[in-house]
Formats: sequence, C-alpha cells, structure tokens
Amino acid sequence: MSLKNFTSINDIDEINSWIQEAKEIKQNPFLNNKLGNNKTLGLLFFNASLRTRLSTQKAALNLGMNPIVMNVAGDAWGIEFGDGTIMNGATAEHIKEAAAVVSQYCDIIAVRAFPTLSDKEKDESEHVLNSFLKYASVPIINMESSTQHPLQGLTDAITISENTNKKKPKIVLSWAPHIKALPHAVGNSFAEAMQKMDVDFVIANPEGYDLNPEITKDTPIFHNQEEAFKNADFIYAKNWSAYNDYGKVLKKDTDWMITKGKIGNAKFMHCLPVRRNLVVEDAVLDSDNSLVIDQANNRTYAAQLVLKKILENG
Amino acid sequence: MSLKNFTSINDIDEINSWIQEAKEIKQNPFLNNKLGNNKTLGLLFFNASLRTRLSTQKAALNLGMNPIVMNVAGDAWGIEFGDGTIMNGATAEHIKEAAAVVSQYCDIIAVRAFPTLSDKEKDESEHVLNSFLKYASVPIINMESSTQHPLQGLTDAITISENTNKKKPKIVLSWAPHIKALPHAVGNSFAEAMQKMDVDFVIANPEGYDLNPEITKDTPIFHNQEEAFKNADFIYAKNWSAYNDYGKVLKKDTDWMITKGKIGNAKFMHCLPVRRNLVVEDAVLDSDNSLVIDQANNRTYAAQLVLKKILENG
Amino acid sequence: MSLKNFTSINDIDEINSWIQEAKEIKQNPFLNNKLGNNKTLGLLFFNASLRTRLSTQKAALNLGMNPIVMNVAGDAWGIEFGDGTIMNGATAEHIKEAAAVVSQYCDIIAVRAFPTLSDKEKDESEHVLNSFLKYASVPIINMESSTQHPLQGLTDAITISENTNKKKPKIVLSWAPHIKALPHAVGNSFAEAMQKMDVDFVIANPEGYDLNPEITKDTPIFHNQEEAFKNADFIYAKNWSAYNDYGKVLKKDTDWMITKGKIGNAKFMHCLPVRRNLVVEDAVLDSDNSLVIDQANNRTYAAQLVLKKILENG
Repeated sequence: MSLKNFTSINDIDEINSWIQEAKEIKQNPFLNNKLGNNKTLGLLFFNASLRTRLSTQKAALNLGMNPIVMNVAGDAWGIEFGDGTIMNGATAEHIKEAAAVVSQYCDIIAVRAFPTLSDKEKDESEHVLNSFLKYASVPIINMESSTQHPLQGLTDAITISENTNKKKPKIVLSWAPHIKALPHAVGNSFAEAMQKMDVDFVIANPEGYDLNPEITKDTPIFHNQEEAFKNADFIYAKNWSAYNDYGKVLKKDTDWMITKGKIGNAKFMHCLPVRRNLVVEDAVLDSDNSLVIDQANNRTYAAQLVLKKILENG
Repeated sequence: MSLKNFTSINDIDEINSWIQEAKEIKQNPFLNNKLGNNKTLGLLFFNASLRTRLSTQKAALNLGMNPIVMNVAGDAWGIEFGDGTIMNGATAEHIKEAAAVVSQYCDIIAVRAFPTLSDKEKDESEHVLNSFLKYASVPIINMESSTQHPLQGLTDAITISENTNKKKPKIVLSWAPHIKALPHAVGNSFAEAMQKMDVDFVIANPEGYDLNPEITKDTPIFHNQEEAFKNADFIYAKNWSAYNDYGKVLKKDTDWMITKGKIGNAKFMHCLPVRRNLVVEDAVLDSDNSLVIDQANNRTYAAQLVLKKILENG
Repeated sequence: MSLKNFTSINDIDEINSWIQEAKEIKQNPFLNNKLGNNKTLGLLFFNASLRTRLSTQKAALNLGMNPIVMNVAGDAWGIEFGDGTIMNGATAEHIKEAAAVVSQYCDIIAVRAFPTLSDKEKDESEHVLNSFLKYASVPIINMESSTQHPLQGLTDAITISENTNKKKPKIVLSWAPHIKALPHAVGNSFAEAMQKMDVDFVIANPEGYDLNPEITKDTPIFHNQEEAFKNADFIYAKNWSAYNDYGKVLKKDTDWMITKGKIGNAKFMHCLPVRRNLVVEDAVLDSDNSLVIDQANNRTYAAQLVLKKILENG
C-alpha cells in the first residue's frame, strides 16, 4: 500500500510486509534511483540531529531525490504557531505561510520538532507536526515530534527481525538513567512498533516513570528491572522523563544503568546518542551483543522505505 | 537576450518577454535540466532566508546545477570590506580574497546581504553586493541587497501578470505597520518592476515614509491610504523604515494595517514573511484574494529564468 | 597507487606523480564524473571553513559523489572523546558511536578539527582525527587537524610546480605577524610537502617560533627574515603561535609583515584567509606575483585527486 504521510507507527498498515520491503531495499539500495528524480525532500530541523539528518538525506539520494536541509532557527525566521495571534513579538512568520511556502519548493517535507517537556497539553497536541499536516500541501514525514519517533520505531522493528530466529522473542524496553529531562518519543514509538509484532514485549521502568497509558495499553510494565530482564532476547534501553509528573527527573541515582551483568546474552539496543557509563556501561556497548550501529544503519532503509511509499503514491 | 549579472530590476531588458519566458519555465520546469550540468551555484547568506534559500536551490536543481549553500557568518570567516584596512580586529578575510576564491568553486554566486539601516551612505553604496561584482570573476545574483530585491520584484511582476486580464490594472504598493525597522529593498524593486509594466501604479505611505525619490520617480505617492486604494486591483503590502529619517520607526500605531474592509475585492500581495494581525489581518491572508503563496511559488521560476539566462550567456 | 586514508603529507607515496595527476584532473575535471555515483562524502566541520568547505564539495561533485555537510557543534550533539568517561556532563555522544554511525551513511568521511593550542599533548595526539581513524569503518580525509593540513600542502606543491621552470627553485616558508594564536598545521604540512620535492627549502621565523623539530627535521631555519629571502623564488607566508612555549603569541610588533620591498620578484603564497596589512601588505596581494587565488583554485584538484584515489581503492 502506498502512503500519504508518515507521522506515527500507526501509519504502518502491516509491519511484517514493511520489514520485508525494507530488507529488500537494503539488499539493493539503488534499485529505485530514478523514482525521486526531479523531486525535492525538504528536511526542516527545529532541533539537533545526527542520524536522522544524515540517514534521511542518504535515503533520499538513494532514490535520486534532491534533499534540501534547513535548520529553521538559524537559517530562517522564528515561526508562530498560535491562531489569531497579533504578531508583534519575537516570531516573524506564521506556520500557515511557512508550511504552505515550503510546499511550493519541496515534494515532501520532513520535520523534527522536540517537545517543551514543560507544557504537557501543548506537547500532546503535537502542534508543530500537526500544523505542518494542516497547512502544508505535500506529504509530511515525522523526523521525531513531541511524542513520536516513528522512523526510529520502524528501524528498530527491522533490526529485531534481522537479529532473531525465534518465533516469539522476548523484548524489554528498559528505562535507563540520565541527567537531563528527555522526551518520550522513542519509547512511545518503540512500544507501538512492538505491539504490532509477534513478540513478547514488556516495559521496565522505575515507579513514577510509566509512559502514557494510552500508548502502553496492555503491555506489561515492571517496576523491577531484574524481573523484567529474565529470559530477555533484546534489551532496548532509553531514558525518558516522568510522564505523570510531566517532564520531571525524579530518579537521580544510576541503579537502572544497563550493565553486562544485568543483560547476560540478550542483544542490546539503543537509538543513540547514548551517554556511556550513565545509560549503559562500556562493556555492553563494546560487546558483540550491541546492535546500536546496526540500528543506525537501518535508519537509512526505514527512511528510504517511507520515501519510496510516498513517492509511489505521488 | 542573455544576462551577465542580475543585481536590480534594471537588468531586465524587456519585462514582458521575461514574464512570458518565466511562465513557459513554470509550465515545463525540467525542460532545461541539462543546462546546468557540472555547474555550481554558490548561495552566500549574510542574513536569514527561507523562500530565497529554498526557491533558488530548487531553481538550480531544476536546471541540473549543483547548489552549495553557505551561511557566511556561521560557516566561514568574518569578512572585511574596507579598502586598505589594517586587519587587526574582528574580520579575518578580505572580500577581495573571499569573492575571488568563491569564484574558483562556483560558476555563479548568489548573495544576500541586508542593510545596516543605520548608515545610509554605506547602505546606498551597496558595498557588499558591489564588492562581489568587483572582485568575483563569475556572474553575481542579488538575493536581496541593501536597497534591492530584484528576484522578488520579478516574481511579483509574473504573479500580477498571471492574475489579471485587465489591460491596465491598478496596483497599489502600501506601507503597512511593523514593530521593527525594515529595509526598503522589496518596496524599491517592486516599484521599479511596476514602472516597467503597463499598469496604473501608485504608492501609499504615511508622511515621513516616502521611499527614495530617485527610485519612485514620477510614481504618484498618496499619504491617504483610503484614497490610494480606490478601484485598486492589487494591493501589495510591505513595511519599510523611514528613508529620509533613515532607518527610523516613526509611526507605531496600526492605522495602516491592511484589512478586508479596506481592500474589498482587490488581490492581496506580500513578499513574506508577514506578521499576521500587525501588517495585515488574518481575514485577508486567509481569503481567496490572497496571492502570497502564488508569489512564493513564482520565486522558483523567477530564479530559474535568471539562472537560465546567465547559463546561456556562459 | 590507490589510497586508504589521507591524513598527512606522508600518505603521498610519490609527490611528483601526484602533482602530475592533479594537473591532468585540472585539465579535464569531469572525466571521472561517474566514479563517485551512489557514493556519499560526509564533511564534518568542528570549525569554520570557506575554501575547504567549498572546494571539497566541488571536488566530490566533479566525481559524481554526493557531498553531505554537517557543522558538528551546531547541527548535532556534543561529542565525547575520552575513554571510559562517565558521560554525565556536557557531551551527549561518544566518538565511538559517532564515527561508526557516520560510516553507515557516508562512503568517505572528511573531518576538520582545530587544535586547542592550550594542551600540547592533546593536540599532538590528534585525538579527534585519530578517533575517526580508529572508530570509523570508512576512509578518512583530513580537512585540517591539530597538526596537519595535507590538502593544503598538496595544493601548494601543485601550485609551485605550475609556477616555475627552475630545476630547483628556492622556497621560503616565512612566519608573519598576527594578533591571534594560530595553529601550526599549515606550516607543518607545507614543510613536509617541500621536503618531498626537489626544491631548495628554508624556513624563516623569529626566535621562539621554531616549528616542531620532528617536522622541520634538517630544513634550515633562519631567524633573520632578510637573509632567508635572498634569491627566493617563492615566499610562503603564514603565522603560527609558538611551539615550544606552546600556543603563545610572543611577538606583537609587525616587523615580519611581508612587504613588496622584502620579497622583490618572488612569487607570494598564502593559504588564506589572510589579514591584509598585518600578515602581508596590500601591494603584495594585489600584485601579479601573488598566487593566493591560484592556490585556492588548486584546492579543488588536490581534493579531487585524493577522493579519486580513495574511490579507486574502494
């Protein structure tokens, strides 16, 4: 099936066929290198990016598309999202114009915009992403929004599929320590991706750190990391700030750091960037059980699959 | 006719044939997609840009050129423009070298450099643009200089031509309120473009805000907005700071804001970015009479026409 | 011979054949414009750049490669280079991951990272460049590291070869004044390049400014500029901070500024950017004896040669 926009894991109609197609792209990445000819992908960054920035450009290039990158804050104008605002302050251009204008030059627009982590309602409204969906006239790809990082979630599903022969592997998404308040997007999209796969999926996090229950749904949540890790085939580590006590860092010790001792022979996953010896110890990242570089590699093929599906819809 | 540089509306020999050719490019934008092969367009930004940044890249790509973008301040070195300066201060590279060097890598150089709005003589000397003209060895395109924005003026001429069947439509360039001191470039280039077309062109601005008389020449200037707007077919809104009392914001109320009531059935134009409900009210921008997104779209074809003419000269 | 990485002048096996091949590329720059198809060059800048930024992109484009540029500090995450660090400070991503990840998207990685000029041991360890060599899985090109700028050194060798018919021309590398503490990289790589050529090469610098003796080896060093300049065919000017009294600016007068009177009919060279009337007077830069723009032009062909050799090795 072709695709209009890609903003959350829910845009994946059947995850196993997507994984299969991504693997085929990985085998032969230049097969469709005419599909994007004369088409432009605009990559708009409201926040820092390394993997997403490079892999999404690479994916576009593999399809013969022209990527155009813009750091919105540094390169252009402060953007206003409020409806009916009298714009006599810091913002110089309204999203109504910005999104419509970029649509004149780009055949697809990819957007990264992180949450405030201070205004839960605003973040959950996905006001940046949804404003692009509303006011742009071309397809939108989410390169990590306030609450979702679906290119990462799709990547992770591909990577798990490549690294197991088990019929129903056990996957644990584990909260891990950090010094800063981080978004929920990666955790959310990973959870949603796992819920679509035929896996035994559980989440481990300290009390007070449960993710949004509308996303975790009936996924078992353990507040005891050791118990959750029993017989795990894959441990996916990620920090996030509290959801209920929104955006707060409640736990400052490093009890939950991922160690070799804790994970045994399970494969280790993380979306990166990762803070070594805070989130996870060197011994895990430097072991053969770490899949983090494979995940990074698969970002290209996840993005290329999404672009291909949108271009085929065009 | 082919083209050496494009720095002001005066570089347009016959505007109607340019408009005609731009419309043909718009109908078939990839017709000349080999013309720019193996050629590089350097886009040098001394200031922020959204439309110009994206549309000029898109225009180059449509012609098969490779665009290379550089934010001069952030990416490279502070540039010195003074002649004979002992460079023992903040600037690290002289424009003599910078322009000559960029000419080694780029077949055409496009430059954006805004005015100081504090030093009239310096701004009117167009020292940045003219330094590139003097010291570069390749064609120069003005992406908005101290006093001119000819890619915008050409775009606006194309857009007006597309949106009227009248033999001699009435066009009003109206000053509109803003909180900051803004350049005169857009107003100047729009006035010069209209003076080349077979239109009934007038300017409306508050007293004290008359543009440079060497540019407005014999264009009627109204200090009464209502009177100027009578029977207008197109209202082009733009703020600019005072020209005589150079760079000053003299009028702080919003009497001159463009409203639906004021413009009636006239088409509305603005170069963007525009501050909503300060320059113009939502009801105008959100109506079918607004041409602002069409203008943004035509930026690509104005730039592509200019690039094509320069490449054909090469 | 093909090439694995290009990190110093020592990677040049036989400089005369390299110079010859670069001249052939310059004659016919698009001859190999399929060699880089479907390949990506990642240009990672930890510091400002104009010539290197543009010429290396141009070189990649001439070979049909796709350049992807990233300003590491502004676009991505703070990078940690320490081994075993508990990353609970300002850095968010370890070079182990960063280099391995970028290797997933780029077929070649080019890196610019200037020295601290405060920590000699750290600078001499070339910790940034060597970390990329260690942790990346693709070839690395040095776009100026703490102690080396080999693309510049190769460029300078090409430029000298183009501008002399003498069997053994006399070349002087002369220290020149500056207000800031500058790196030794250009001086080092120029010295190493000259040592490989059949030239009469000497260095002139004030006392206290001798470069690293492991690099200058048996090259004669004059502390008297006038004496060094006698019968010179080429004067290459460059400031550097003290090496022994590491990173210090010891001499604040401008006695050593390069003047027309001092250099006579010798050709003048500088890597640029250059501060006029501090390092060298206008009369020299504006004379026909100045080769600085030719040097800048040859940066493209030096980079293109290096890329070609690496691609042919691939």
